[in-house]
Amino acid sequence: MKRTSFADMNCSLARALEDVGEWWSLMIVREAMYGTRRFDGFCERLGIARNVLTTRLNRLVEVGVLTREPAADDPRFSEYVLTAKGRDLLPVLAALLHWGDRWRSRGDGPPVVITEIATGREVQPMLVRTVEGDPLDLEDVVVAPGPGATSQTRDRLAERARRRDEATADG
Amino acid sequence: MKRTSFADMNCSLARALEDVGEWWSLMIVREAMYGTRRFDGFCERLGIARNVLTTRLNRLVEVGVLTREPAADDPRFSEYVLTAKGRDLLPVLAALLHWGDRWRSRGDGPPVVITEIATGREVQPMLVRTVEGDPLDLEDVVVAPGPGATSQTRDRLAERARRRDEATADG
Repeated sequence: MKRTSFADMNCSLARALEDVGEWWSLMIVREAMYGTRRFDGFCERLGIARNVLTTRLNRLVEVGVLTREPAADDPRFSEYVLTAKGRDLLPVLAALLHWGDRWRSRGDGPPVVITEIATGREVQPMLVRTVEGDPLDLEDVVVAPGPGATSQTRDRLAERARRRDEATADG
Repeated sequence: MKRTSFADMNCSLARALEDVGEWWSLMIVREAMYGTRRFDGFCERLGIARNVLTTRLNRLVEVGVLTREPAADDPRFSEYVLTAKGRDLLPVLAALLHWGDRWRSRGDGPPVVITEIATGREVQPMLVRTVEGDPLDLEDVVVAPGPGATSQTRDRLAERARRRDEATADG
């Protein structure tokens, strides 16, 4: 199975993955954290082949990272939703993203930065003494365009922010 | 290319990797962090096929995670040494390890724990506000047996500690 190169995506996480393996699964989890739930949404936003996406989604459901549910607005469609186990991958993704920012930058700075919603401050993954710090969860943070964001990245983040706001208004 | 299953290793990181992809590269980096430098050492300790190991080591050298150097004691052998870029993968490995501890535990607790050398305290990967905490580097920590360590894991950690002490004594 030949896989698409991640190297050309405007995403430091994807660039890091290009170095260290075959990571569609984490890319799907990343996309789910942005609020994507439908097969076609993953397919379009990740540029992943349908058969590969099917295999990976099934596997993520099997291992309990995602659940498959009928869509609330149209039960003919399935939706893939992160479980607690899946949401808990945030520090892994953040660590990879940060590493990619640091080592695979193209001189134009990070495409995206993770910021704390409450304060607007950028957050960092790090190894700390347990007694220090106060870990942040998925609810606490948002991904914002960084200095290296392309217009496509900005558009996508804006679209995700709209979806997020809609979901909040619905809830 | 069929890959060996990680699931049976006594290592939460490996168990996490079994869920989320094809990660020999990170397993090699983990082994390099434990002080392994020779091809045969990686081969034996990871149980990886020689042809796969060759491919992954070449790739890790190519992307600048490892360097290939003549061995100090016998220049006929090559040694693979982590670069700054490779050492900086510690938070990624720690985050995966922690996730594996939390979600792929077999009820017997973590096989290994990362502890701060200076204090003996367990450390945690987490997403924190940048102003908080004080990140720990590879030099600051050591991997110790956890409650779920098998005797094989204990033996390996003891062997690694011996190698580490020898390296320190040499240096």
